[in-house]
Amino acid sequence: MSHPVLDLIFSRRSIRKYTDQPVDREVLVELLQAGMAAPSAMNSRPWEFAIVTDPVKLDALRKSLPFGNYQAPAAIIPLYNPLIGSNPISVSFWQQDLSAAVQNILITASGMGLGTVWIGVHPMPPLVGAVRKIIKAPRWITPLCVIYVGHPDQTKSPRTQYEERRVHWDEY
Amino acid sequence: MSHPVLDLIFSRRSIRKYTDQPVDREVLVELLQAGMAAPSAMNSRPWEFAIVTDPVKLDALRKSLPFGNYQAPAAIIPLYNPLIGSNPISVSFWQQDLSAAVQNILITASGMGLGTVWIGVHPMPPLVGAVRKIIKAPRWITPLCVIYVGHPDQTKSPRTQYEERRVHWDEY
Repeated sequence: MSHPVLDLIFSRRSIRKYTDQPVDREVLVELLQAGMAAPSAMNSRPWEFAIVTDPVKLDALRKSLPFGNYQAPAAIIPLYNPLIGSNPISVSFWQQDLSAAVQNILITASGMGLGTVWIGVHPMPPLVGAVRKIIKAPRWITPLCVIYVGHPDQTKSPRTQYEERRVHWDEY
Repeated sequence: MSHPVLDLIFSRRSIRKYTDQPVDREVLVELLQAGMAAPSAMNSRPWEFAIVTDPVKLDALRKSLPFGNYQAPAAIIPLYNPLIGSNPISVSFWQQDLSAAVQNILITASGMGLGTVWIGVHPMPPLVGAVRKIIKAPRWITPLCVIYVGHPDQTKSPRTQYEERRVHWDEY
């Protein structure tokens, strides 16, 4: 952990307890600026984002997501829209493109002192349908996940889960 | 770009020209430590990584990847291994898990002054097969992408590709 960027990366932990303090709209926009700085296949940027701060919708999200029942003041939902940006090749990489944007958001939030947690949605059809309905998105829009965002009400130590046995030098 | 973490995120650009200087093995390990600090579904960590610095193998990668013909001194190849970590639920999220690890690696490299570029492999069967063969991985191992790593021999300005029209507040 000698390098500052490693400190930042290791400090991002999944936060599941948040204070009641809302997240400023300006900060949410900065998180989206970070998300949209991610690379994408052939620079296709097939992403949109829903930002949920409405308490009724947040409650509906909590009730719809078996692994996402957390009291956060905001949620960012990355959406795949096959009608923008994609071409016959890049379309195959949308999960990777959106996931890169998500990780940018998580790291940026952590660097700003905010907490986040990545709740899986796609490719679980019931979860995809439920989230799509809550944000009133059309049927061709696929939510990848739900990112809860808030001020952390728990402390976690920086860490990596590096394991040498996962690494293969030149050959498997 | 008022916040230091945004500067870092915006500074990560896809680098396709590298100097001949090799990347220290210690630095490659630090990049893998960053990768393995990523979140994964149910903390399943279904990842392994091949590190390629052998010139013969790098040349074979260049020849196999139509969008990856770049002269870099090293490549990191994140691999999905369904036999480690996964369970019937988390298995569905492996692309997202590995992509989060990739983005951690790209950001960390950028923060250290190194350049990277993410070359798509999965889900293109000919590319998956070619990369698997070069690193001599068994047939159940899926390479997600190839990350070239090196000292940049080109300069790119920090940027986001943020667009307000991609953002939906509370409802689509």
